[in-house]
Amino acid sequence: MSDRSRSWWGWGDAAKAVPDTTCGQLAAALPGCATTPVPVPDVATLPLRAPRIEPPAALACRFSTDPYDRAGHTYGKSFRDVVRALAGEVAAAPDLVAFPDTEADVVAILDWAGAAGIAVLPYGGGSSVVGGTEYRGGDHAGVVSLDLTALDRVREIDATSRAVRVQGGALGPVLEDQLRPHGLTLRHFPQSFEFSTVGGWLATRSGGHYAMGRTHIDDAVESMRMVTPVGIAESWRLPGSGAGPSPDRLFLGSEGTLGVITEAWLRVQDRPEHRASDAVLFSSFDDALAAVREIAQSGPLLANCRLLDGGEARFSGAGDGTHAVLVLGAESAAAPVDAELAAAVEIARGHGGSPQGARSGGGAVGAWRSAFLQAPYLRDALARCGAVIETFETACTWDIAPALIDAVRTEVGAAVAEVCGTPGIVNCRITHVYPDGLAPYFTVAAAGRIGAQLAQWDEIKAAAMAVLTRHRATVTHHHAVGRDHRPGYDRQRPEVFAVALRATKAALDPQGILNPGVLID
Amino acid sequence: MSDRSRSWWGWGDAAKAVPDTTCGQLAAALPGCATTPVPVPDVATLPLRAPRIEPPAALACRFSTDPYDRAGHTYGKSFRDVVRALAGEVAAAPDLVAFPDTEADVVAILDWAGAAGIAVLPYGGGSSVVGGTEYRGGDHAGVVSLDLTALDRVREIDATSRAVRVQGGALGPVLEDQLRPHGLTLRHFPQSFEFSTVGGWLATRSGGHYAMGRTHIDDAVESMRMVTPVGIAESWRLPGSGAGPSPDRLFLGSEGTLGVITEAWLRVQDRPEHRASDAVLFSSFDDALAAVREIAQSGPLLANCRLLDGGEARFSGAGDGTHAVLVLGAESAAAPVDAELAAAVEIARGHGGSPQGARSGGGAVGAWRSAFLQAPYLRDALARCGAVIETFETACTWDIAPALIDAVRTEVGAAVAEVCGTPGIVNCRITHVYPDGLAPYFTVAAAGRIGAQLAQWDEIKAAAMAVLTRHRATVTHHHAVGRDHRPGYDRQRPEVFAVALRATKAALDPQGILNPGVLID
Repeated sequence: MSDRSRSWWGWGDAAKAVPDTTCGQLAAALPGCATTPVPVPDVATLPLRAPRIEPPAALACRFSTDPYDRAGHTYGKSFRDVVRALAGEVAAAPDLVAFPDTEADVVAILDWAGAAGIAVLPYGGGSSVVGGTEYRGGDHAGVVSLDLTALDRVREIDATSRAVRVQGGALGPVLEDQLRPHGLTLRHFPQSFEFSTVGGWLATRSGGHYAMGRTHIDDAVESMRMVTPVGIAESWRLPGSGAGPSPDRLFLGSEGTLGVITEAWLRVQDRPEHRASDAVLFSSFDDALAAVREIAQSGPLLANCRLLDGGEARFSGAGDGTHAVLVLGAESAAAPVDAELAAAVEIARGHGGSPQGARSGGGAVGAWRSAFLQAPYLRDALARCGAVIETFETACTWDIAPALIDAVRTEVGAAVAEVCGTPGIVNCRITHVYPDGLAPYFTVAAAGRIGAQLAQWDEIKAAAMAVLTRHRATVTHHHAVGRDHRPGYDRQRPEVFAVALRATKAALDPQGILNPGVLID
Repeated sequence: MSDRSRSWWGWGDAAKAVPDTTCGQLAAALPGCATTPVPVPDVATLPLRAPRIEPPAALACRFSTDPYDRAGHTYGKSFRDVVRALAGEVAAAPDLVAFPDTEADVVAILDWAGAAGIAVLPYGGGSSVVGGTEYRGGDHAGVVSLDLTALDRVREIDATSRAVRVQGGALGPVLEDQLRPHGLTLRHFPQSFEFSTVGGWLATRSGGHYAMGRTHIDDAVESMRMVTPVGIAESWRLPGSGAGPSPDRLFLGSEGTLGVITEAWLRVQDRPEHRASDAVLFSSFDDALAAVREIAQSGPLLANCRLLDGGEARFSGAGDGTHAVLVLGAESAAAPVDAELAAAVEIARGHGGSPQGARSGGGAVGAWRSAFLQAPYLRDALARCGAVIETFETACTWDIAPALIDAVRTEVGAAVAEVCGTPGIVNCRITHVYPDGLAPYFTVAAAGRIGAQLAQWDEIKAAAMAVLTRHRATVTHHHAVGRDHRPGYDRQRPEVFAVALRATKAALDPQGILNPGVLID
């Protein structure tokens, strides 16, 4: 009952997967990769065990045991997930996939699951790259993947306050399609935009389009509604408040461990009419970083301020690899933004940057955007040829940024060389910037060995997490914690907060059925 | 051992209290008030009971049983507090006032108090207007007011990231004095700025200087450190993160119920060099409101965008009462802000506003600012003459704003007339604005009856809380919940969140010693 156009094993649309014949050509960029991709298993041949549970007849919700649904809901879309799916490993498959049509369905499923000791894994677009939707053991009687994408309606539009009430299961384009006729937009565009939901964004504190200002979805939330095993939480619609700790902020980032987000009021805006963008080249990445800092600390609020190092620029077609590229963009619904862009460009020039000339798209800016959306498909193609690939992101204050980025390049680079026997690639871009810091995003790729890719990835990932936590840089800026980032998160999270979170978990989910293994035990 | 220049019974500096001879003249503005103020009791004559507890000799921390300290730490600075202090009611006085010099002192006090069942009430500047620092019963063996103002040092400055590590007990001016030599400023100016602390701001989610953008202190917090009975919580310094629910956001607004905030890293900025401000008159408050909405939704980010209704404008000397006054201000450390101000003024003009002409201070802008800082002293003077005075604030979305403001004027006005037998004053100003809503602030004043002021206030306050909660407008935008807002807060807070908060409280403060009665039972 899932959308059959979606890939069950890899990223996004099945039809957009890189064709077998092209995979090998792409893999030539990573010497040592196989030239022939491993085949994609036929879903019908997957060793899915018989479902251990059956929904009670009284439960009106739609359930599926179809192999395509079960296989497609076994994992998220991380490198590890793709490699395991390609290997036909589906032991973790849910017994059932539930497709609630109403919030009442969600309540009924949680009631049933709580009484029966069944694990429930909330599932939005399934784009998690951190093991957020995968059952990894425990003593549950069974596992239900709770696919929320039928709850996808905009229920109310308050044009005066510019806010909308939307159900949690709306995928990005499904939301925007409903806002467009009203001239409104959320303008929250994570890389996963097409394949992730509003509820997923809220549950994982998704990072969006904006490089500055409203970087995370958190700030777009006016109120939210969450079904928990002990009742429904709904906060009041408030533009701001100082009444105790924010209820929403406790549930934002709870990653399905405390409840299922069924609705939210989100702050939207008029669709932008005015745009300006430019790309600035720097021969020194550190100079570019200094420019970005000055822009973040004294320049105008830009929609886009993304810095690509040479490798990342080449990788995305935004440059030839000899220069770092700073992609700048301003936008507004109300007034021209040329002055804002010019101010940022002037700062960049002051740090030795060479502006390529303002434009409204195309060139380096368009190349970067296009590559950004293609990257996950490319990753899947390379994974099929034996590559080991990881993208991870973090955030830190400006004072330690150069040291952190150097340490990642050096230490993760060394781990890649050690593990894969080849230097591979460690590229860096800056995705979001703040007055007090920045969010560096790293792409790691090297030729691995088919059959050993998971173990190789694990070693590289451990090296990455070690360098981040040693610098007290967050284990994730916007990919979430899930299960893969637990070792780093457990070190990062203050122990007193862990005590609070454990107490909250025990109080709201007394049977421990919700997304077990994520965030907290 | 407290600063003896501070008023023990009323607002701020004792020397700035309105002289007796002037009180009666001021009270003439509220017909029916007494012309002679009630006297301020001599501290030496207050009926303070003997302290029931004694600190153990091993505890090196400074403690005081001095009547001035105990009386001055009995209440915050709300109208109810002032009236009770003037009446010599100090039954709720703490047994001891502790003045920790180090975080280790705080830890030791919590350890001792936990073992002995002694209530600990964290005390910053003592400016709470919601009963946030007052013991209101329970079965504790004694009560300690924990005065944190000796912990007032800036410990570290990271000029690169523009962030500072400061102790929780620093009063506003004490913090700014330490930042000024570095050209930095926090620019967080609540009305209580001189008499409130960093830790108090964080514990209550204080609202500051900025009318737009960073309205609450929350967004200035990079990390914080809090002593709880089960350990010290310290979050990493991060400009942004998506690693689980924000630990800081659970502790921000916890109002001393979960721990004592001893340090925080705060985002600071260069001192502004460029300023521009103007005042715009409107004959219609609703037109002014529409202008403010358009500015908030499409205009530039302003530092100041405060709308005073006619009564509030007259009250503050910013107008003659015939017009609403919109006070606009822009500022920047980097570049002139005349264009930003002009854009906002143009929007105001489009809604029928009459700009008074850009200036850098003086006129309506300066009058408003000066009256803003004097208001609490004026309130104390009127309270001494039998007035009933309350200021309360809220926030709501734009769609319900006119109805809410009308309802407050009507219903609270009716309550005042009923309770006091005189129409009194219900003025409104808008203190903070958001794209999706606004924070209206109401000033209520009428001639009451000496001896009956508390009961009269209680009825008016109940009417105010009823109209706010009926509209699902927050019970407080930046004054905090304390004990006075509990009835409204208990209705506002989602019950599931209350379950989480209760579980957290039980886990972090198992003996229930921290600020009992605030937020949650």
